[in-house]
Amino acid sequence: MMQQTYTELLPPRRILLGPGPSMLDPRVLQALAQPPIGHLDPYLLKLYEEEQELLRIIFQTKNDWTFVLSGTGTAGMEAALANLLEPGDAVLVASHGYFGERLADIAGRLGALVDRIARPWGQIFSIEELEAALKRKQYKVFAIVHAETSTGAEQLHMAEIVSKAHQWGALVVLDTVTSLAGIEVRVDEWGVDLAYSASQKCLGAPSGLAPITVGPRARKAIERRQRPVSSFYLDFKLYAGYWNGNHSYHHTAPSGLHLAFREALRLAVEEGLEARFSRHREHAEALWDGLGSLLLPPFIPKEFRLPVLTTAILPGGLDEVAVRKRLLEEFDIEIAGGLGTLKGKVWRIGLMGYSSQRENVSLLLETLRTLLY
Amino acid sequence: MMQQTYTELLPPRRILLGPGPSMLDPRVLQALAQPPIGHLDPYLLKLYEEEQELLRIIFQTKNDWTFVLSGTGTAGMEAALANLLEPGDAVLVASHGYFGERLADIAGRLGALVDRIARPWGQIFSIEELEAALKRKQYKVFAIVHAETSTGAEQLHMAEIVSKAHQWGALVVLDTVTSLAGIEVRVDEWGVDLAYSASQKCLGAPSGLAPITVGPRARKAIERRQRPVSSFYLDFKLYAGYWNGNHSYHHTAPSGLHLAFREALRLAVEEGLEARFSRHREHAEALWDGLGSLLLPPFIPKEFRLPVLTTAILPGGLDEVAVRKRLLEEFDIEIAGGLGTLKGKVWRIGLMGYSSQRENVSLLLETLRTLLY
Repeated sequence: MMQQTYTELLPPRRILLGPGPSMLDPRVLQALAQPPIGHLDPYLLKLYEEEQELLRIIFQTKNDWTFVLSGTGTAGMEAALANLLEPGDAVLVASHGYFGERLADIAGRLGALVDRIARPWGQIFSIEELEAALKRKQYKVFAIVHAETSTGAEQLHMAEIVSKAHQWGALVVLDTVTSLAGIEVRVDEWGVDLAYSASQKCLGAPSGLAPITVGPRARKAIERRQRPVSSFYLDFKLYAGYWNGNHSYHHTAPSGLHLAFREALRLAVEEGLEARFSRHREHAEALWDGLGSLLLPPFIPKEFRLPVLTTAILPGGLDEVAVRKRLLEEFDIEIAGGLGTLKGKVWRIGLMGYSSQRENVSLLLETLRTLLY
Repeated sequence: MMQQTYTELLPPRRILLGPGPSMLDPRVLQALAQPPIGHLDPYLLKLYEEEQELLRIIFQTKNDWTFVLSGTGTAGMEAALANLLEPGDAVLVASHGYFGERLADIAGRLGALVDRIARPWGQIFSIEELEAALKRKQYKVFAIVHAETSTGAEQLHMAEIVSKAHQWGALVVLDTVTSLAGIEVRVDEWGVDLAYSASQKCLGAPSGLAPITVGPRARKAIERRQRPVSSFYLDFKLYAGYWNGNHSYHHTAPSGLHLAFREALRLAVEEGLEARFSRHREHAEALWDGLGSLLLPPFIPKEFRLPVLTTAILPGGLDEVAVRKRLLEEFDIEIAGGLGTLKGKVWRIGLMGYSSQRENVSLLLETLRTLLY
C-alpha cells in the first residue's frame, strides 16, 4: 500500500515576521497541545463563554453576538458579507489594497450589487470622499478595511466614517484582521455594526479561527432576511444557537484551536490593551529607524503607518526573492513580499502579537545588514 | 481592564467514544504542538504534497484535485455542493438521516432546485428506488451520505448506485465523513465524482480540516460554470492555485492542523487500509456483543451496520441524559445522544481512528454495567 516512506516530521523553527501567522507564546502552544474534547463538552462550552468575555474586552464592545468561527480570517470576511447581504442588495466597498478588492469579490459572488470606491494602494480615504460615495445610493452595507495588510496603511477617522455611513443608511462592516489587539479598535464607540478578525495576527493564536462581533443593527438586519444565508457553515444564527442558545449541534469545532485561542486572549487582556498597543508601537519605531539606515524606507507616511505591518520600499535592482529565500532558508526568518500592484516593490514585515519583540527587530535588522551590504 | 481572573487551562482528559472528535495518537498530538510556520513556507507546501499522496491512497483515487480545506466536515459538505451547483440547477438528495437533511438544506441555500428522496432514519436505499428517482428529471448532481452518523447505517451498493446516477446523467457527491479510513471507500472504482470527509473521525486527526477529492467529470463541470462559486473561501479553483499551481495566496492555512493531519494520514497508511478496517470491525463486534448483554441492542441490522458508529437502542424509562452526564463527569467517557428523530431513543457510540481500541470497549462496557445495573 505504501508508495514511499514518509519521514518523521521535523518542521523548521521560524522567526515569523511576515503578515501572519505570528509566533506563539509557549503558553499558547501548550494549550494547543492538549488532547481533544468534544464539541458539546461542558468544558468547551464554558471556554466559549470565556472567549466571548475576553473578545468583548478586546473588540471594546458589549455585543451579545460575539463568536469565534471555525475558519480563517477570510472565512470571517465571507461570513460578515454573507450574513448581511442578499442577492440584489447594494453594497459599497472602499478599496485601497488587496483585501478591499477581496471584499468586493466576495460581495459580488454573493449576488450583491457592488459599487467600489478605490484609492491607490498605500493611500487612505478622506471622510469627505467616502461621504460623497455613500450619498449616491441607498446602500445596505458599507465595507472597509481598517488595517490594509497589503499596504501597511491604517484607515484613520473610523468614528467619523461610521457616523457618515449611518447617516446615509448603510450598515458598516469593518475588517480588523490585522488591527485587532495591535492598534485601537473601538467597536461600540465607533458604532461599527459588524467586525471580524483572525486568530493568527496580533491576537497571537494559531491560524484557523475568525472572531466576529455583530452589533444590534446588523443583528436585526440578519433576523429580517428574506432568504436564508447562502452559507450554512457560516450562518450566524446557527452559531448563536451553538454558542449562546441551547448549544444545538452545528459543526465539530476544533477544541485545540479554541484552547490555544482562549489562552492567547487571556494573555492579551492580562497585558492590557494600552500596554499592548504601546509595545507594538515601540518595536515598530525601532524597526522603522533601522530600515531607514538600511535604505529600505517605510512606504507609508508616518501619519497613517501601521505599527503592526510595515511595508519597506525596495531599492531598484534588488533580487528581493533571493534575499527572502536566504533569510528563510539560512536564518529561519520569514518576511513577505508585496501583493498585487506592490509585488517586487516592497517587503512586508509584521511585528504582531508574540512576534512583536525587541529581539526580533534586532535580529531582522542585523541579518538584513549582513545580506544586503 | 480585567473583569475577572481567567485561570490556567486544565482541560479534562476524555475517552472520546462519540461520533467524533476521536482521540489522538500521541504522535499526532506531538505534531499539532509544533510552532507555526507560514502558509507559503516551502516546508508546508511540501507537506501538502505528502497529504495529497496519502489522501489519494486513502480515498483510493488518482484525482489530481485532492485538497484539504481549512474548515470542518460541514465546510467540506458545503464546498462540494457550492462548487458544483449554480442557482437553478437540479439536485437530487437521498436522505436517510440528519446529514442527508443537511445536504438538502445546504443545496437549497445555494439556490439549487432540490428534490429529496427519503427513507426513515435507520434504513438504507435500494438501487431500484434510487434509479426510479434519478430517472424523473435531468439532475446535475446526486448527493448521498455513505455512512450516516446520525443512524449508524452504511449505505450499501455504492458502485451500482454511482453507475445508475451516471447512466441518468448526474454527478455523484458522496459524503464520506464517517466512513473514510474506517470502512472501504473506493472513489475511483465506484466512480464517485466528488467526495469529502472530516479530519477528526476515522482519520484520527484534530477537527478543523476537511479533505476532498474531485474527479475529472466534476472538475470539468466546475470549470464550465457560468457564475463564480458563491463562496470565495471554499472555491476549489482557488484551492488548486494554492495547492497545485503557483501557490498563490488564498488564505492563511493552519499549519499546526496540517502537521497533525499529515501525521495521522501517515499512521493510517502505515497501518494499511485493510488492517485498519479489520481493527475497526473487530472492536465493533466486541462492542455489539457487550451491548447485547447490557440490553442495549444495536439499532441497525447487522447487514448494513457501521462498525465505526453504533447506535444502541435505549430501554424505556431510562434517563439517558443523566447516565451520559455521569459517564462524562465521573468517568471522563464521552458518548453521544441521538439526533433528530432518534433523540432520546438511542445512544451513539463511536469507535473511530485511535479511539477504536479494545481497552476502550472494555472500559465503556464495564462502566455502563456499573451505572445501569
